[in-house]
Amino acid sequence: MQHIRDIASVCAGHGVTTAIISPGSRSAPLTLAFARHPRIETKVIPDERSAAFIGMSIAQQQGRPVVLICTSGSAAYNYAPAIAEAFYQEIPLLILTADRPPEWINQYDGQTIMQSHIYGKHVKKSFDFPTEVNSDDSEWYCNRMVNESLLVSMDLPKGPVHINIPFREPFYPQNGEVYNFPEVRIIENTKQRQTLSEEEWKSLRSQWNESSNRLVAIGQLENNFRLTNILDAFSKNTNTPVLADIIANHNEVEEAIVHQDIFLNGSLDEQNKALAPDLLITIGKSFISKNLKRFFRKHRPKTHWHVQPSARLNDSLQNVTKIIRMEPQDFFSTLEGSKSENGFANQWISLNNKTASLIDEALDQGDFSEFHAVKEVLAEIPNNSQVHLANSMAVRYVNFLGLKDKTGVSVFANRGTSGIDGSNSTAVGAALSNEKPVTLLTGDMAFFYDRNAFWHNYDLKNLRIVILNNHAGGIFRMIEGPSNQPELEEYFETQQKLNAENTCHDFGFAYYNAKSRDELRQHLKEFYNSSEEAKVLEIETDSAQNASFFKSFKHFITGNLTE
Amino acid sequence: MQHIRDIASVCAGHGVTTAIISPGSRSAPLTLAFARHPRIETKVIPDERSAAFIGMSIAQQQGRPVVLICTSGSAAYNYAPAIAEAFYQEIPLLILTADRPPEWINQYDGQTIMQSHIYGKHVKKSFDFPTEVNSDDSEWYCNRMVNESLLVSMDLPKGPVHINIPFREPFYPQNGEVYNFPEVRIIENTKQRQTLSEEEWKSLRSQWNESSNRLVAIGQLENNFRLTNILDAFSKNTNTPVLADIIANHNEVEEAIVHQDIFLNGSLDEQNKALAPDLLITIGKSFISKNLKRFFRKHRPKTHWHVQPSARLNDSLQNVTKIIRMEPQDFFSTLEGSKSENGFANQWISLNNKTASLIDEALDQGDFSEFHAVKEVLAEIPNNSQVHLANSMAVRYVNFLGLKDKTGVSVFANRGTSGIDGSNSTAVGAALSNEKPVTLLTGDMAFFYDRNAFWHNYDLKNLRIVILNNHAGGIFRMIEGPSNQPELEEYFETQQKLNAENTCHDFGFAYYNAKSRDELRQHLKEFYNSSEEAKVLEIETDSAQNASFFKSFKHFITGNLTE
Repeated sequence: MQHIRDIASVCAGHGVTTAIISPGSRSAPLTLAFARHPRIETKVIPDERSAAFIGMSIAQQQGRPVVLICTSGSAAYNYAPAIAEAFYQEIPLLILTADRPPEWINQYDGQTIMQSHIYGKHVKKSFDFPTEVNSDDSEWYCNRMVNESLLVSMDLPKGPVHINIPFREPFYPQNGEVYNFPEVRIIENTKQRQTLSEEEWKSLRSQWNESSNRLVAIGQLENNFRLTNILDAFSKNTNTPVLADIIANHNEVEEAIVHQDIFLNGSLDEQNKALAPDLLITIGKSFISKNLKRFFRKHRPKTHWHVQPSARLNDSLQNVTKIIRMEPQDFFSTLEGSKSENGFANQWISLNNKTASLIDEALDQGDFSEFHAVKEVLAEIPNNSQVHLANSMAVRYVNFLGLKDKTGVSVFANRGTSGIDGSNSTAVGAALSNEKPVTLLTGDMAFFYDRNAFWHNYDLKNLRIVILNNHAGGIFRMIEGPSNQPELEEYFETQQKLNAENTCHDFGFAYYNAKSRDELRQHLKEFYNSSEEAKVLEIETDSAQNASFFKSFKHFITGNLTE
Repeated sequence: MQHIRDIASVCAGHGVTTAIISPGSRSAPLTLAFARHPRIETKVIPDERSAAFIGMSIAQQQGRPVVLICTSGSAAYNYAPAIAEAFYQEIPLLILTADRPPEWINQYDGQTIMQSHIYGKHVKKSFDFPTEVNSDDSEWYCNRMVNESLLVSMDLPKGPVHINIPFREPFYPQNGEVYNFPEVRIIENTKQRQTLSEEEWKSLRSQWNESSNRLVAIGQLENNFRLTNILDAFSKNTNTPVLADIIANHNEVEEAIVHQDIFLNGSLDEQNKALAPDLLITIGKSFISKNLKRFFRKHRPKTHWHVQPSARLNDSLQNVTKIIRMEPQDFFSTLEGSKSENGFANQWISLNNKTASLIDEALDQGDFSEFHAVKEVLAEIPNNSQVHLANSMAVRYVNFLGLKDKTGVSVFANRGTSGIDGSNSTAVGAALSNEKPVTLLTGDMAFFYDRNAFWHNYDLKNLRIVILNNHAGGIFRMIEGPSNQPELEEYFETQQKLNAENTCHDFGFAYYNAKSRDELRQHLKEFYNSSEEAKVLEIETDSAQNASFFKSFKHFITGNLTE
C-alpha cells in the first residue's frame, strides 16, 4: 500500500495542506495515509454533501487544492453538487473516491456503484487508479496520475479533478504499524505569465482611443486588493465607469457603480439609452444583476473585450468580440488608454449616487421587513471580515444595497451553480480557514437545507449567521410569474415552519431572535462581540409583507428616477 | 406549452399517480402541469436529496413509476444518490429535470450545469426534450419520448429513466389560465410471461434429480405472499432448505433458515463443510449475510441456477452456471423435482434452530446494549406492518435475529447501494404510501444524515422511528480493522454529540428516550399506540459496551456451536 501513502506525499509536495474526510471502511487506506501525513491537516465531516462544500470553500480560501476523501457507493454522488459548484467557480479540488475493484461492480454487492467518471464533465479530468500495483510501471503510473491531477486542477481555469481508487481487502495496517512517507517525485509546472505582442497592444489601444463611451463591468471575482488598486487608478486616469456587482469584490474602487441592478431596470430603458457603451470591457465570472445583463444584452456594444487568462468562452452578455488572454491586473496596468472627457462616466456616477440616496429614503419608509433588516445588519458588518451570501434573496438584497463604506470585506456566494444546497457549508469552510469574523446572510430555505454543515466536532466561534426567516422561499412571491398562481404557497414558496432555535441547541450556538427593528438593533449591539461559540441571529418576518415592501421599494425608486 | 402539460397526461395514462416536486422557477411548467392534473397526486419536498429517496420509496410501494420534478442546476445532482439506489434496487422512476436551453449552458449564468445524461449509467435511459416544439414531428417526438421512458422504466429490470427538459421564459401561464388535459396517445407493452421449452424443463429436472444436496438461497426481494406460499410448498415437497436473509422477506416460509450470518462464520467452516450444496438455486438481489456469501464463495456448488426474469448478470456468489430467465414463482411451481431423503435439509434446520436458542441464551446475558434493545423492539413490531432497516448495524442486527414469529411484516432496506443517505426518506415515503404502521430502525449516523426527510408539511402519524444512538458509527468498533487503529474514534466512528430530542421538537414528533432496559420496556408499552404524530424512540447506549457485548455474543455462539 506504499503507493497509496505516496498520494498524500505527492499532495503535500504540491502544497496541499488540507484533506476533508468522510468516514468509511473502504477508504481507510486513504484516510490513514492523510491522517498520518505530517504536513496535512485533516477534518472529518460525516455528510458528504456538506463535506464537499466545506472542502471547496477551504480550497477557495487557500487558493490551492483541498483533498476530499470518501468511501465507495453513493457517498461519491453526495459530493456532486459541490463539485459542480467548484467547476463553475473554478476552484481546485482533488477528489479521491475509494471504490471496490472493477470485478465487483454491478454484482449486487454492498456499497458499489459505477464510480469511474461519475462526475461527467463537471470535473476537468477523471482518472482510474490501478487495482493492483506490483510493478515499476504501475508505481510510475500512480505517481504520474496524482501529479497530473494536481497540475490540472491548478491550470486555468482551475477546477476539480477526480481519481477513483479501487481497493481489495485488507484495508487496515497491522496494529501499531508505523507509516513512512519517503520522498516522492513531484512534477512542477512553471508559472506562466501571459502577455500580448506590441502590435496587439497597439491595436487595442487604438480601438480604445477611437471609442467614446467606455465601460468596465466586473462579474464574480475573488477579493484582490492589487487589482482593486489598479482598477481604481485606471478608472480615475481614463475617466471610465466601473460596474461592480456585490460578488465582484470591488466596492473599494472609489467611484464604483454598484446599484445597477436597480437603476438599469427595464422600465427606465429608454431614458438609460445614453448609458450604453461602445466599448465594454468585462472581467470575472457570473454577473448577479439581472438588469445589468438585460441592459447589455439589449444595448449591445460595438466592441466587447472579455479579459481572462483562460480560453474558456464566456458570452453571458451575448456580445463578446475579443477574449484578451491575460490577468486583468496586467491588462489594466498596461493598456494606457486615453482619458475620456465626454461626461459618460459622470452620467453613470450621478445615476448611481442618486439611486443610493433613493435607496436610503425608501428604506426609511415602510413597516419593518427583511429588506430593512438587511440594511441594519450590513451596517454592523465588521471591516476586515468575510461575508457569505446565500441564494436567492440574501445575495440579491446585498447586491441592491452594496457595501460601499466597508474596507477589507471579502464577499462570497455560490454563484457557480447558484444553488441553495451548500451555503452553510461554504461559510463553515471559511470560518475553519481563518480567524476573521465570517458572516453568513441566508434565508430559511438555504439554512435548513444544509444544516449538516454544522454536524462535526470543529470550533466555529468566528461564525455569525443571520437568517432571514420568512418561513418560505420568499423569492417566489417577489417575482411575478409564481406570485400570480394559486399554487404559490404550496408549490413555489413551500411554506415551512422551522425556526433555528432547536438547531442552535443541537450545535451549541448562541441564538438571537428578532421580529422587530428594535429587537434586531438590540441584538446587533452584541452580535459581533467575540464568543466561544458561533452565533445565529434569526430575523423572522412575514413573506407577504416582505414582498409588498419590495414592490413599493422598486416602485418608489423607479418613480423617482423617471425623468 | 401543451406538449409539457401532455407529459402529465401520458404519465397518468401509464398509471402514474404520484409526482414529487421540489420548488423551483425553471421547473414551473412541469410543476403546474402535474399539480393541476386531476389524476396525479403531488407532494412538495424542498431538499432534493430527500425528495428523490421519498419518491423512490413511493414507487417501490406502488410498484409503478413515480415522477420526480426539480429545477435546473445542482438540484438535479442532489437526486443522484437516490437514483443510484433505485437503479440497483430496480425501482421504476421518471426523473424530469428542468433545464435552461442549450445555448445557455456554460455561459456563467445562474443555475446552469451540464444536465444532459447527468446520471451516467445509473439510469436505464436518458432523453433530452427539444427546446422548441412548433411542428407535428416535434410533438410526436415528445409524446413518444415520454411513452418510451415509462415503458423502459417498467421493463425488467425496472429502474430510473431521465428526461432533461429545457425551458425558455415565460414559464408561467396567464393569471387565471385554465389547463386542459386533452387525450394523448399512450403506447402500451403487452405483459410478457416467460416460460421454458419442454426440453429445457426436462434438462433442469434431470439435473435436479441427479443432485443430492439442493439448497435455495434468497437475496433481497420484495414481500410477495404468493411466492412465499409457493416456496413453502416447494421446500416441504422436495425437502429443500430455504435460506432467507432478513431482506429476502421470506421469514414466513415455515422452516426458513435465517441465522446463517451467525452459524456460517469462518471459524466453523471445517465442521460446516457438509452444508455445502451441489445444486444451489438463488433468487433475488443482494445478500446481506457476509458469512453466507463467504461460505458459498468458498464452497462452490457444482451447479448454481439463478432464477430471474431479466438478463442482468448477478454473480455475487462467484459460481452461477445458469440464469433461468423467468419469475421465481413460475419456476418453483413448475419444476416438480424429486424429494430429497438424505437428511441434508435437517442438518441446516437443526443448526438454524440450535443457533436460534443460543441467540436467546446469549441475549439473556450481558449488560444492556443496543443488541439487547433490538431484540426488545422486534418483539413489539406489530403484525401486518412495515419495517425499514437502515445501514449499517440496524439491518445487521435484525438479520442476526430474524423476524420468525411475525406475520405480514414487510422488510425494506436500501441495499442497492447500502448507503446511509436516504433511510429516513425511504421510511417517510412508505409512511406516506399506506396506513400501516411503518417502523424505521436506524442508527444515529443515518438518522441525522437524512433529517431533511421530515422537512415538509405532510402527516406522518403512522411512522415510528427507533434510533440506536451510540453517538458514533458504531460498526467501526465492531469490525476488526478500524477498532485496532489509534484513529478509531476520530476518523472511523466519528463520534457525534446529537440526540434526536431537538429534531423531534422541530417536527412535532413525540419523543421517547431510553438508556436502560426498563426505560425501553416502559416506552415500548405505548410506542405503537395510535397517535396524531410520528414517534421517535431513541435508545442511547455506549459504543464500547455495544462492541464488547457483540464480541462476547459471537464468542458465546461460536463456542457453543463448535463440536
